[in-house]
Amino acid sequence: MSERPVDEVTIADITRAADVGHGSFYLHFNSKNEVLTPVIQERAAEWGAHVQEHLENRDDPAEVVAFTTRHMARAALRDPLWRWYLTHSGVPVDDMRAAVGRFGARDFGTGIESGRFSVPDLDVWMRFTMGAYVSTLLGCVDLDEEAQGLAIDNMVEMMMRVVGLFPEEAHEIAHRPLGALAPPN
Amino acid sequence: MSERPVDEVTIADITRAADVGHGSFYLHFNSKNEVLTPVIQERAAEWGAHVQEHLENRDDPAEVVAFTTRHMARAALRDPLWRWYLTHSGVPVDDMRAAVGRFGARDFGTGIESGRFSVPDLDVWMRFTMGAYVSTLLGCVDLDEEAQGLAIDNMVEMMMRVVGLFPEEAHEIAHRPLGALAPPN
Repeated sequence: MSERPVDEVTIADITRAADVGHGSFYLHFNSKNEVLTPVIQERAAEWGAHVQEHLENRDDPAEVVAFTTRHMARAALRDPLWRWYLTHSGVPVDDMRAAVGRFGARDFGTGIESGRFSVPDLDVWMRFTMGAYVSTLLGCVDLDEEAQGLAIDNMVEMMMRVVGLFPEEAHEIAHRPLGALAPPN
Repeated sequence: MSERPVDEVTIADITRAADVGHGSFYLHFNSKNEVLTPVIQERAAEWGAHVQEHLENRDDPAEVVAFTTRHMARAALRDPLWRWYLTHSGVPVDDMRAAVGRFGARDFGTGIESGRFSVPDLDVWMRFTMGAYVSTLLGCVDLDEEAQGLAIDNMVEMMMRVVGLFPEEAHEIAHRPLGALAPPN
């Protein structure tokens, strides 16, 4: 995968590299998407840890979720593998949940427990938000970096409304200066 | 399509019924999903017109959008073709936009023009909301009718927050009695 664009990597390349038969591949994986799932999850975990280290003295759950989501979405759109995955796998809500859900759920959970956030139903909220996230990022793939950043921040503004913040505060939190956090990738 | 479950309909059945060659089919359509797109769009338009006739004296754009979305989502989950489409086509955001976008955009536009709704960006809002809609409905496919209805209403509550309503009013509008509108299908 590191040698050439993911579009040009075939199942045969993967089975050859892994020294398994083509039949065995399909026994374990339904598609190239499925092989990539652990890879994109691993990358998301790395970015999550990187962003986590740069939270500084942010302790309002709304600001933590907004800051993290804004950085993670930017990292996803910068990464060729994530871009490919986004555009080739429909709404991989359950995989995405596993990928970004770990810290997302932690930060969001803090907001719920403290009463900072309120949603009518946790499962519906999770599916709603992951679908909104994937669909919005898909619409950003062909934009330039500045337009991507603006779309991401507007998406985060709406996510803040979804967890119960009033529109004015949602706007303010989603558009604060991002600081000098360097890209993790 | 009316004769048996959509899962059992093959491309060969479609080309035979339409009296065209298999090659011609692929010249025009990329997949079975694509053939279905106009069909599901047509159904959505019928439901939309049906719901439209039963709006009665609702004239608040928030109530119109909530009432319409609650009925349309219920109709989609009741319809075998829509269920198949939802579970087999990833995030068909652009197709969905064409399918439910016509009246959705009209009702939503009224809310924007009147100042009842406000969103940070129209395109981002549309992708965000369609992604949330598809993803939430996908999560409802295997629930019973009562649980589906509750999940749909909770989704609509979050959609009302997204367009700028305060949480309390969003909740109230998304859970009003639905009235005696009979299913269109």
